[in-house]
Amino acid sequence: MNVDLSATWQEASRVTLRGRIAVVIDVLRATSTIVTAIQSGAREVIPVETPEDARLAAQKTGAYGAVLGGERGGLKIEGFDFGNSPYEYTPHSVGGKAVIMTTTNGTRAFAAAREADITVAAALLNIGSVANVLLHEGRDVAVICAGTEGRVSLDDLYCAGALIERIVTPGSDWVLNDGAKLAVHWYGSNTGTSFDVLASCAHGRRLAELGFHRDVEYCSGMDTVTEVPVLKGRSLVSR
Amino acid sequence: MNVDLSATWQEASRVTLRGRIAVVIDVLRATSTIVTAIQSGAREVIPVETPEDARLAAQKTGAYGAVLGGERGGLKIEGFDFGNSPYEYTPHSVGGKAVIMTTTNGTRAFAAAREADITVAAALLNIGSVANVLLHEGRDVAVICAGTEGRVSLDDLYCAGALIERIVTPGSDWVLNDGAKLAVHWYGSNTGTSFDVLASCAHGRRLAELGFHRDVEYCSGMDTVTEVPVLKGRSLVSR
Repeated sequence: MNVDLSATWQEASRVTLRGRIAVVIDVLRATSTIVTAIQSGAREVIPVETPEDARLAAQKTGAYGAVLGGERGGLKIEGFDFGNSPYEYTPHSVGGKAVIMTTTNGTRAFAAAREADITVAAALLNIGSVANVLLHEGRDVAVICAGTEGRVSLDDLYCAGALIERIVTPGSDWVLNDGAKLAVHWYGSNTGTSFDVLASCAHGRRLAELGFHRDVEYCSGMDTVTEVPVLKGRSLVSR
Repeated sequence: MNVDLSATWQEASRVTLRGRIAVVIDVLRATSTIVTAIQSGAREVIPVETPEDARLAAQKTGAYGAVLGGERGGLKIEGFDFGNSPYEYTPHSVGGKAVIMTTTNGTRAFAAAREADITVAAALLNIGSVANVLLHEGRDVAVICAGTEGRVSLDDLYCAGALIERIVTPGSDWVLNDGAKLAVHWYGSNTGTSFDVLASCAHGRRLAELGFHRDVEYCSGMDTVTEVPVLKGRSLVSR
């Protein structure tokens, strides 16, 4: 089987996703927040590309208790219920509700993954559970790092490397593309330092400047969540 | 000063290049071949995006002894004088001539660099000379790895890391973006193994399959060429 990694969602547009399971990663913070929302009992998370798309989707699903979440420039969008901080997505705030979400990088990566047979959301938080899903499915994997505004982002690559390292065990017959090899190498040289990696990458420093230190710390937690959000139609739901 | 690395030429479209010196890297094989052609006495190398562009440019410059070079799918283009093997660009074949060149990745990276104040061609072959140019210029650097058909390529990242490692000395005040940090890390973990890196990356394996083993070996040579081709107008010339 193959592991094909794209370092940005823009790069993923060049990958044949049909027949594959796509793993979307945006550690800071979209997939960390989505994983948390599902763990908190959100009925579904609907990733959309723009704030306008989010408002339109809310009008359609509003009767069922939809809330709006997401960011632009790291900050909550005007008129939205929540920003992109996982701490906002508690059982109290999102339990039983549909969360419609738009972020600069992460939610767009789900759009880039639309041709895949199966699409799941991964973060450091749920990495062990995602690895188990990949091993269970036993098919070619396309890892789609969201990146940051089209640029390679070290936090996403770290998470991707950690994930690939868990499925590519000695003796297994996985074949890695250049990006996947690079991710494994990056993770392998920084094992056990997830907080340092997230805090020192460009995106982590930017979030700290905006006052989101705690989010960076939270997102660096590994294996703290068991949920694996999976795309059904346009919604991410509990697998 | 800043070092901003793009892992593919597509990623570079998101970078502000004005005020910067751009370093275009396509180790396998475009910039290795361009560096070799200039070292062999080619008067200029004109990078163009398509075979049709190349033929049109040849009609304009034909009277001055233009030759056509480049590849699609790694192989010489029909009707062209040369492919993309550096061994073809000898003093006998290109000395004093204009070489019009189109390749799948590398020559397009020069188009992506067009807004930069200065653009140079770098490969492992001329890495020391390029580092000296960057230290001499003392301005912000944009490293543009060509990548392979939009995908991150470990050969280009290796060369970029080797180059950055030479200019970012202890005590210097260079600031690296995530991509540049990754390249330095990748190179630092594989110092002294340039042939192994080039031979094992996806592009190197593909070239070996096509029978270009010797090209991969040649392109892995470090500091074997002193020329630094620099873009003047539309032409790369000896600096």
